[in-house]
Amino acid sequence: MTERMQNAADAGPGPHYLALRDHLAGEIAQGALAVGARLPSERQLQLGSGAARGTVREALFQLEAEGLIYRRDRSGWYVSPPPVVYDPTRWAGFMAYVAEQGRVPTTETLGKQSVAASAADAAVFGCAIGTPLFALDRRRAIDGRPVLVERILVDPVIAPDLLDEGLDGSLTAVLTGRYGVRVVRNHVEMRPCALIKDVARALGVASGTPGLLVVRRSFDAGDRIIEYDHEYWRHDAIRVLVEVRTRD
Amino acid sequence: MTERMQNAADAGPGPHYLALRDHLAGEIAQGALAVGARLPSERQLQLGSGAARGTVREALFQLEAEGLIYRRDRSGWYVSPPPVVYDPTRWAGFMAYVAEQGRVPTTETLGKQSVAASAADAAVFGCAIGTPLFALDRRRAIDGRPVLVERILVDPVIAPDLLDEGLDGSLTAVLTGRYGVRVVRNHVEMRPCALIKDVARALGVASGTPGLLVVRRSFDAGDRIIEYDHEYWRHDAIRVLVEVRTRD
Repeated sequence: MTERMQNAADAGPGPHYLALRDHLAGEIAQGALAVGARLPSERQLQLGSGAARGTVREALFQLEAEGLIYRRDRSGWYVSPPPVVYDPTRWAGFMAYVAEQGRVPTTETLGKQSVAASAADAAVFGCAIGTPLFALDRRRAIDGRPVLVERILVDPVIAPDLLDEGLDGSLTAVLTGRYGVRVVRNHVEMRPCALIKDVARALGVASGTPGLLVVRRSFDAGDRIIEYDHEYWRHDAIRVLVEVRTRD
Repeated sequence: MTERMQNAADAGPGPHYLALRDHLAGEIAQGALAVGARLPSERQLQLGSGAARGTVREALFQLEAEGLIYRRDRSGWYVSPPPVVYDPTRWAGFMAYVAEQGRVPTTETLGKQSVAASAADAAVFGCAIGTPLFALDRRRAIDGRPVLVERILVDPVIAPDLLDEGLDGSLTAVLTGRYGVRVVRNHVEMRPCALIKDVARALGVASGTPGLLVVRRSFDAGDRIIEYDHEYWRHDAIRVLVEVRTRD
């Protein structure tokens, strides 16, 4: 670890791939390679740098691991947009905190249906296994680029006509405005994970790409669960930020 | 997404790999496959389930993505220990919060040296590029299994003899006890990432495995930076938990 981290930080001497990584990272930082720009092809990078094919790929994988570049289908490598900052201690939904950061949030409903509570769901909702729950599947994008897919479960008792509502905005706003529900507590759990199968496909990333699973449970003043949400984020789209001070 | 998530949750009908996934997840949940136990070989799973080789592998990759099992070198698949819970809003270091959860934390110093501040370091420390900083590289384990590697940077002005100290415990305790430094604010940033190269090697995982990068900056009452820490966690070892209530 020592050598890698030091060399990457210092742009000093070190393995050849780090020199190329530092060169490309520098171009990105200075804007010579702008957000959304396509990188030169691997072949062009090979010719330009005099590096071997394996070295070029190592540099690209390093930049991908850091979230600076990403692959799009098979058309090549692109400069990643900056990640959005998510502060779980703040009281703002996706549509609000993304817009606050000067970005454009959009939400697309992929499906809405009634499902039977699994054992795990039943434990969270305090209901019997098999009890009907509303499931809402959505994909959310920032500046047109899909960044997360989510499934939200809601107890039909709380919002009987929920599936007839427009759900492409803030679900919390619908629950508050239409059903008078008020969330007063959020329990947020975050786990790094691999994005695979249908989730990877919905986000347009290769299966196995790193991601972040954010599981949010929202409760009202009576400690009744209102929303149970699983969000799968692509790894380069989110940065979680928490600031904390001693209380004494 | 809809189908996958639904089927995985319900153990209902669905792709064959999900049935095997649910079966193995059930064995793990019930303790028939205990923490640390080696799973049957892929060949044995094939014979036992009647599933095709590709189906068996899909089920194993699914369980790996969820953090329930992991690969050890080339010796097979093992049941993951439960992740440790990290609450960035709490004021406890690794040695403290891991022990509180009934687990055994250990710290191993991999290297300590003086390095020259990079442009990024200089911006954080408010010093000139090239200024000497102390760098401490450590690997930390829970119950003997390495879970993170980290590099901590400290300004030598704050702790001139730091590199001569024993640093296999809490660095904060050394800075407080020996140098009278008091941290009053932490700025914590978390980014999902891929673990590659030296970091992956130090943690004994395959290059490209998902991980979590935790970047922590600690400040004293005068807003002077005390510790600048980069922690790379293996994805199945950590769960970040934040609980928040409305303030009104």
